[in-house]
Amino acid sequence: MPSVKIGLSLGDPGGIGPEVTLKALFTFSNLPEADYVLFGPRSIIEKEINKFDLGVKIPDYDPKKASSLPQITLYDIPYPLNSLKSGYPCKENGEISFTCFKKAVKEAKKGSLDAVVTAPISKESWKLANINWAGHTEYLCQDYPEAIMSFFSNNLNVALFTHHMALKEALKKIKKKDLGDFFLRLDRFAQKATKKRFHLLVPGLNPHAGENGLMGKEEITEIRPAINAAKESGVQVSGPFPPDTVFKKAYKDNSKIVASLFHDQGLIAFKIVSFNEGVNVTLGLPFIRTSPDHGTAFDIVGKGTADPTSMFEAIKLAVQFSLNYRINNSL
Amino acid sequence: MPSVKIGLSLGDPGGIGPEVTLKALFTFSNLPEADYVLFGPRSIIEKEINKFDLGVKIPDYDPKKASSLPQITLYDIPYPLNSLKSGYPCKENGEISFTCFKKAVKEAKKGSLDAVVTAPISKESWKLANINWAGHTEYLCQDYPEAIMSFFSNNLNVALFTHHMALKEALKKIKKKDLGDFFLRLDRFAQKATKKRFHLLVPGLNPHAGENGLMGKEEITEIRPAINAAKESGVQVSGPFPPDTVFKKAYKDNSKIVASLFHDQGLIAFKIVSFNEGVNVTLGLPFIRTSPDHGTAFDIVGKGTADPTSMFEAIKLAVQFSLNYRINNSL
Repeated sequence: MPSVKIGLSLGDPGGIGPEVTLKALFTFSNLPEADYVLFGPRSIIEKEINKFDLGVKIPDYDPKKASSLPQITLYDIPYPLNSLKSGYPCKENGEISFTCFKKAVKEAKKGSLDAVVTAPISKESWKLANINWAGHTEYLCQDYPEAIMSFFSNNLNVALFTHHMALKEALKKIKKKDLGDFFLRLDRFAQKATKKRFHLLVPGLNPHAGENGLMGKEEITEIRPAINAAKESGVQVSGPFPPDTVFKKAYKDNSKIVASLFHDQGLIAFKIVSFNEGVNVTLGLPFIRTSPDHGTAFDIVGKGTADPTSMFEAIKLAVQFSLNYRINNSL
Repeated sequence: MPSVKIGLSLGDPGGIGPEVTLKALFTFSNLPEADYVLFGPRSIIEKEINKFDLGVKIPDYDPKKASSLPQITLYDIPYPLNSLKSGYPCKENGEISFTCFKKAVKEAKKGSLDAVVTAPISKESWKLANINWAGHTEYLCQDYPEAIMSFFSNNLNVALFTHHMALKEALKKIKKKDLGDFFLRLDRFAQKATKKRFHLLVPGLNPHAGENGLMGKEEITEIRPAINAAKESGVQVSGPFPPDTVFKKAYKDNSKIVASLFHDQGLIAFKIVSFNEGVNVTLGLPFIRTSPDHGTAFDIVGKGTADPTSMFEAIKLAVQFSLNYRINNSL
């Protein structure tokens, strides 16, 4: 089987992205075999290599040169070190982190990469640079509106029906047709990436899932009909369950995924049980995209204490899911 | 110090309430020293004692007789065994569970009990019996509208600004004046029960706590002003934090309590990390009320497998908080 090719965008250079990316690539003995292409400024990468005494040289990426061995190369995106401001959002860092990400995505769209692993960007840096996407996922959803934000760890898997919008707006989106479509897409996309069929667990929206309409009607008017429609299409899905117990049903059970109705319904549970090993996965793209589940952590930049585990898990999942995509595509 | 007197209402007799109550009272070697008064039908209690081979006799409660020793007595509320239906909600079980609870509360209001520990009732049984309270807490809030629903465990403490209402309605309640008052009450009541001052952590309502108004305005218009007002009154309170990370800040830190904005925001986090040892506490009453954090568990009734840990923890907290109330009241 040919090695898969994984692009990594370096994230906001003023955050912990460069640190966790290089630590993940060079300090774990069990890095999966793959061709890795770093998208970022050589200036910053060499600074980090020296700082952490990694003793490696990263050759330039040459798309025309087929490598015989899995290796790590660099797609240099020049950035003068004196533009770098560490530990807080700034326009220049926003511009460079967006460029790294965009170039990696462009290569993936062309089919030159199987996956893109994105180190954390700062939404505020993006805003200062007039880049008005709420995040990586929203940028990708522009071309792939069916894509789904999901999170995987050894303890819990969740997918989000809506993500970066005000809660009041998110509640208005809960309509049976769209929700039923979401269950169908989630079932299909998760199977494509993981090569297995998940059982979807659906939380209600209201306390105790509404207790038969005593506290809110959405379970009756929208959520249950959506579940029934998806079931009729062959999806393994059940609910609506009380939101405060459904995550326990899926806890440490890798055959289940909680199809959460809004951002924090899923992420409150996910983040408190996934510690430092959670991975954000965008499902439903023609390529794989993963990311650690933490942010730029401006408060600890430069201390050398950033934990690369989530980044390493994001790389591992990217490789594993890329292999599954290839298998699916060759069927 | 005089022993505290703890009432225990038996809960829905068709659920696991009787089983966990008797197991908690008679199978743990470290039951705290106190006078315990069971409020329930002798018929059902003796059935359980025989079933679990507990080999105990429970004398009748006599309020006029001062006991010299801590003991367990029974306030009998007669119920013919042939009325009992196990494993599902029914009118008769609803009536008897309400009577047990009401009588215990009445004794506590009179000052004859320091605390009431309530085994789980079925809201559906109550409804069948035309008892229209959404739960124990709502019944208590009738006379004590300032009371607060809160949850304690070794891993996390949370309090709820609103509880049993539709999420859409709960969002409308988030107004700076009421929220600020809630922080003040929570600070005062939690201190009275625990003899210590908590640091209150407040989640935002929207993803990432709104990111400065990018996704929802409630953090700016209501939540932050409420926090500032409470701070000015001397409350140790901070936030609003992103809802998906605030619970990690309070995880395993018993000096903190997360002042959650609605039922499932707090309980999704609490239930997934508190396993079987979470305790529901009604703060702000003239007496203590605690309860296990699980329901009637109709699906396992009669199997003998119900875990009494949460009930036992509820009893322990009731004793501990009752002693604190006495200390506070005698200051």
